[in-house]
Amino acid sequence: MLIRSFVPAHITAFFVPRFNDDPLRAGSLGAGVNLSKGTTVFASVETGTLERHIHVAFNGEPVKKGEALITYSVAEELVPGGFLGEVEIWQYFDFPNGYGFGNSAGGALGTALSLSYAFGGTWLKAAQTAHRHEVLNKGGLGDVVAQLAGGIEVRVKAGGPGIGVVDNLFFEDYRVLVVPLGRLSTREVLDGDVVKAIEREGKLALESLLRDPRPERMMALARGFAENTGLLSGELLELARQLDRVLSNPSSMIMLGKGLFALVREKEIDNAKNLLADLDVPYDVAEVYDEKPKVGRWIGQ
Amino acid sequence: MLIRSFVPAHITAFFVPRFNDDPLRAGSLGAGVNLSKGTTVFASVETGTLERHIHVAFNGEPVKKGEALITYSVAEELVPGGFLGEVEIWQYFDFPNGYGFGNSAGGALGTALSLSYAFGGTWLKAAQTAHRHEVLNKGGLGDVVAQLAGGIEVRVKAGGPGIGVVDNLFFEDYRVLVVPLGRLSTREVLDGDVVKAIEREGKLALESLLRDPRPERMMALARGFAENTGLLSGELLELARQLDRVLSNPSSMIMLGKGLFALVREKEIDNAKNLLADLDVPYDVAEVYDEKPKVGRWIGQ
Repeated sequence: MLIRSFVPAHITAFFVPRFNDDPLRAGSLGAGVNLSKGTTVFASVETGTLERHIHVAFNGEPVKKGEALITYSVAEELVPGGFLGEVEIWQYFDFPNGYGFGNSAGGALGTALSLSYAFGGTWLKAAQTAHRHEVLNKGGLGDVVAQLAGGIEVRVKAGGPGIGVVDNLFFEDYRVLVVPLGRLSTREVLDGDVVKAIEREGKLALESLLRDPRPERMMALARGFAENTGLLSGELLELARQLDRVLSNPSSMIMLGKGLFALVREKEIDNAKNLLADLDVPYDVAEVYDEKPKVGRWIGQ
Repeated sequence: MLIRSFVPAHITAFFVPRFNDDPLRAGSLGAGVNLSKGTTVFASVETGTLERHIHVAFNGEPVKKGEALITYSVAEELVPGGFLGEVEIWQYFDFPNGYGFGNSAGGALGTALSLSYAFGGTWLKAAQTAHRHEVLNKGGLGDVVAQLAGGIEVRVKAGGPGIGVVDNLFFEDYRVLVVPLGRLSTREVLDGDVVKAIEREGKLALESLLRDPRPERMMALARGFAENTGLLSGELLELARQLDRVLSNPSSMIMLGKGLFALVREKEIDNAKNLLADLDVPYDVAEVYDEKPKVGRWIGQ
């Protein structure tokens, strides 16, 4: 049996981490956007071997437990202890790992949905399992609930699925331009001194967004958050300013990755592409993904 | 400006009403299914008149306040007091009103989403407004949150949007056969003596479903609920038994309408259609709607 899931990439615009000893109550406040590109997970389940085996591969390459701790933890929990057979989890990412696109949560949620579909369970329990292992392994705090909500989302009450509350903004005609330049460790940032500034600026940005809940406002607040926390500076800030010259809304920093994103109108895309090509920096364009993640049996196209 | 929303029809399989003086905390536990047919709402917003006017039409026919209390209440709340212009809300229903397809909630939610899109707001606030007026006017308790969740849904914590928690079952290849035969007043049932039986049987069905959360189990439990509460009896029960002979899963009663529904496999549809045509009863077939409701500017097709 082959099960396929799709979970959108999720970019955080600004956030407030909410730590809690109970991983289901840990989460984040904040806002972000889900993309039509993201993580696709194929779970192959075959019975008939003498032992219970779980294998994980990223983009076609097998990875060991230490490199895919969250996915292995989710799978260990959802594949029944008494199952005798081979479970292979093939994860394909449209964006690089560690760049702030929620790949870790996408892999966890896609794995949880696929295995729950195969072995029994519900959406909520699968999503809670993914969130719990994300939090325990410091993969992220808010990506799973954001990816479940889709669209341009605002986390108004922190927590995992069933506890956190996610709102959505109305939007029109926007596509998402992304400039992925490199990694930034969520774990290192959340363990560092900048957390206090993040909490202060994130709270202000959220309050302000809820008073005027529009995507344009979200981007302006995201940029303020990125600069005021000091996370966006130097060459990346300079690049953001160059992008701003060809866009009607401010670009901002991908939280957390070394990269930028912007909401762009159809008619602005060519100018932005030309600028980024001139500067010789990588970029991609995606739609806003405004649906639930997908899961189903895969028969082939 | 013309805004279009689509909200799926929602059929309740079994339920437990949860009354509360705070309408956002009122709601229901239970399970049900969302359909690819439902309620389409066009909101036309034109400025330039000297007064603020709100008009509502059902299936092309203007309706007065008394016949569309919930929609008018939602619109009165979401169209700014100082707005000078014409707001027309055109609601089109794929199923008849009062037959248990969640039209009332579909109209309320579609109106709230369309007007919030036009005048500002968020998904959560729009959905809460729709839920609140549904509850206050006894339109229903759980339809709005169920329609927001999509798919085959299980309400595991009662309450409106942001408070209630809705889970989803995994499913495969099912379509929904509906036999809409007539009206049943939600208000009269919820005010009657049968409520105690509904609460007892609904709670048992939910607990049982969560132990074995599969759509097939939901249908068996729905049928038990419908018969044990006495809501399904007489000719309707006889018709359900006839349907069962050509289907692999039990059919059950639409809560609350005089009608039946069933999850059917592709290969079973023809037999069911032939039987219902022979019996000369109306029927329809829809897909399970597994997305979020839709809202957006309408330019025409």
